[in-house]
This record gives sequence, structure tokens and C-alpha cells, in this order.
Amino acid sequence: MRVAVGVTYDGTPFAGWQSQPSRNTVQDRLETALAAVAAQPVRITAAGRTDAGVHATGQVIHFDAEAVRSESAWVRGTNAHLPDEIAVQWACTVDEAFHARYSATSRTYCYVLYNHPVRPSVLARKVGWFHLPLALEPMREAARCVIGEHDFSAFRSAECQAKTPVRVLERVAIDRRGDYLVFAFTANAFLHHMVRNLVGCLVYIGKRAYPPEWLGELLARRERSRAAPTFGPQGLYLTTVTYPPPWNLPGFTPMLALLDNRCQ
Amino acid sequence: MRVAVGVTYDGTPFAGWQSQPSRNTVQDRLETALAAVAAQPVRITAAGRTDAGVHATGQVIHFDAEAVRSESAWVRGTNAHLPDEIAVQWACTVDEAFHARYSATSRTYCYVLYNHPVRPSVLARKVGWFHLPLALEPMREAARCVIGEHDFSAFRSAECQAKTPVRVLERVAIDRRGDYLVFAFTANAFLHHMVRNLVGCLVYIGKRAYPPEWLGELLARRERSRAAPTFGPQGLYLTTVTYPPPWNLPGFTPMLALLDNRCQ
Repeated sequence: MRVAVGVTYDGTPFAGWQSQPSRNTVQDRLETALAAVAAQPVRITAAGRTDAGVHATGQVIHFDAEAVRSESAWVRGTNAHLPDEIAVQWACTVDEAFHARYSATSRTYCYVLYNHPVRPSVLARKVGWFHLPLALEPMREAARCVIGEHDFSAFRSAECQAKTPVRVLERVAIDRRGDYLVFAFTANAFLHHMVRNLVGCLVYIGKRAYPPEWLGELLARRERSRAAPTFGPQGLYLTTVTYPPPWNLPGFTPMLALLDNRCQ
Repeated sequence: MRVAVGVTYDGTPFAGWQSQPSRNTVQDRLETALAAVAAQPVRITAAGRTDAGVHATGQVIHFDAEAVRSESAWVRGTNAHLPDEIAVQWACTVDEAFHARYSATSRTYCYVLYNHPVRPSVLARKVGWFHLPLALEPMREAARCVIGEHDFSAFRSAECQAKTPVRVLERVAIDRRGDYLVFAFTANAFLHHMVRNLVGCLVYIGKRAYPPEWLGELLARRERSRAAPTFGPQGLYLTTVTYPPPWNLPGFTPMLALLDNRCQ
């Protein structure tokens, strides 16, 4: 039986998504907890393999198990075996044609940036930080230049293992909410560090170190070395994974007031 | 020279406010950082001595120092010596008649309760949790019964060192924001665990285990043993300390979208 599961986590204490010998990754913790409920080893596949320190309010995974459990047993049983920073939100049995990664048609990542002279404290490691004033309109103008199907090599990390650097960036929304800027990016898929590199460049434009056109020029040149430094993982959240309507998976309720429906 | 300082912190990693031999308290961390800037030992006094795991978005402290530093040097220098979870927001020199604790005329504490079947994850240790549906109106009706000057012995911890159990509870506001309930309590001062005990009782009323009148009855009986269990520290924030207008201290900008101006 194939089971799809919705998962949320604070990435702070974990060494990223992907399984490692240390076992202190979100994948390892989830596999251990699910195996306890299934009473058999469980191997999971995620829609998005988040980096160390990156959070998720809408991660979707799937796994196959012979064990037959109610949907609520998967949720409650697994949560009882997970650390406080990870929670299963829902579980549902799906057809074996469903694949958390390959069936997904788009992902949305949000970057929450605390834009204030003093660094974060209450939300340390939950938000990024930039201390100088940022102008919203130049950033929005710049973002419009990278919407669409492009070779995003300029915003790709050296370690990126994707076969092609071409992605379809469907939407970029940038909003100010109090002292926070929230950047929402929706694409069919993302290259490694693509969101954090785009945020780094947008911040350069927001502080008026470069004009809005600079982002489109970087994109066209496809050279990572010309772009801004990668922004830290602290402010990054995987908020939504979209599947074609027939799959009809449960949704997530917004978990952070900063990441409301406008971020979906 | 007396200096007043505005401080915010995530209380999670600290053993509360008050100095302890372990030195891992907010007071100890702040005194160490301020001493580094002052180049002399610094002893601080806080408006509210928060418990272990309790947070602050509006704590006010004062200290005396012979060192003459600019206000921005106190802020930036001290922040450079503080752990990520504590930040100084502002500093200003004040007359020696100012006392962070005794000059304060009221405090506001907010309790953020995640009201959802699944426990918190992304905001683990930043919010309290209750898994069953809660009715807002009975809780609001109950809260109205405890407004005013009363003997709050029923909501006082056994360790409370206050000379009198009488406090003036000026305001209780309870609001739902998505899956969160935010309780805001304003009083001249609070007894030990008073907010967390009130929240525990209000939750019993919200889940309809007791009628709204129960809270007033508990208050009148002054017996702690009849009240609900103390709620955890995770959701508690010291959000505002009020001083008479002549002091004219800087304000705090809302740090959590959940704790906006309605919580001040």
C-alpha cells in the first residue's frame, strides 16, 4: 500500500532532509518514526529535499508499506515517535502511480526576511535578516524579468545535481508585513540554492546597489560568479507542493501568520 | 549614569531570567554582554523576571555604569556579545529615579496557544498547544469575571514570593488568529504563574468542562488546588511594560505577526 503524508518541520536542529550516516536528518527521523508504526523498515521519498536549516510548512512524502493502518494511526502514531520539531499533519492511502516528487507539478518556497536594524532574537534561525532599508518596487520590477522558462545557471549552486538548469519560474511575489519581507517563489522545480541565490540578488537590488535590470542580465549571462552571495537557510520555507487535481491530497493550514494564503 | 534598555528574547535555551550559578539565564547573559561594553561589572534589574522557557518581545531593564557610551554603542556592542536568542533593541540614559521594576505601572503578557489536532512543529517551544476545539465566547465571558482588583491566590504558584496576592487585572483579551488563540493579560503586576494558571482554567472553560462562572468561583475561593493545571511556559511572552508618560521610553515594534498591536 502506498501512503502519502503531509509533513511540517523546523529545520534548525537537523542536517537537512536527505539521509546521512549521522541519522540526524528529517528523512532519517521520519523513516525511524514511520518504521515504528509500520513495524517494518520504511523508505520515504519527498517532494522537496530541503537543505540544512531550511523549514517546511507543506512538505509531501510517500512510502510503501505492507502494514495496514488507519490514516489517523499513521498521523498520531508517527508523531509520538518524532522529535518536537517535526510533525505529520495528514496521511492518506494513494494509488501506486502517485509519486511525491515526480507527480508534483509545482513547488512554492517562501523566504522570510527580517528587515530591521537589530538582528532577530525571538525568531532566531526561523527568519533571515537584513539590516538596511530595502525598496520593494525595484525588487518587484527585477523579479518580473526572471518569470518564465529560463536557464537559471546564474542562480545554481556548484553542488547542484539537476540534469538541466532550465526551470519554469511561474510566480514571484514580494510583500512587506511589518518589519518582515516575504518572498514567495513558485516554479515547476528549483535548482539547488536557487531561491536563496535569487533572494541574495533581490536584496542587492532592494538596497539599490544594482538597478532592477541587473537580475535579468545575471540570468542571461548564466554565470553564478557574477551574482550575489547565497542567503542563509534560516528564512526559507517549503510552503506548498502542487499535484494535478485527480490526486486530491489534503491541504495544509497556514502555520505561520507571516506565511498566510498569499504564500501558497 | 543610569541606562534603560529594551530587550527581546526567545526563552527556550535559558534557565529563566534570574541569575543562577549555571550562568545560563537571560540576566547572566545580558550582564556579561553589557559588562564587556562597559568594561566593568554590570548588575541589571528587569521589569519582569520571566520563568524558564518564557519569551519577551518587550522586556525593559536598567543598570548603572560609570562608562559613558553612545546609545547605539550600548545596542550594537551588547548585541555583538549576546547569543542569537537575545537582542537589545534600544538603550537610553535615564534619570536615576527611573527603576525598570518599580517605575512600571503595568505589564502585558500574551499567551499564544496553537489550537490544532496536531502539535506544533515549526513553532515548537514558541507556542503552547491544545488539541481540542475551544469556544471563544465562554472564555471571554469568564475572563470578564476576574477583571479588577482581586486576591488572585487561586492562580498563584506555591513558590510565589509576592508580599500580597492582590493584583489589579486591567484587561483580558482573547482572539483567534487562524489556528492560534492569543490571550493578552494586562495588570499592574502578576503573581508567579498567574497568567499560565489563568490560561489553564480558561482552556477548561473553552473546552466546556466547566461553565464560565467557574473562573469567578475559583477566584472567590482563593484555593489553588481547585484550579486547572498550570499551562506550559512555551506560549508565554512578556510583550509590554508601561511607564508613566514622563519617562517617555522608546517602544518596541511587533516582532511576531501573532503578537501585533492588539497585544500591546
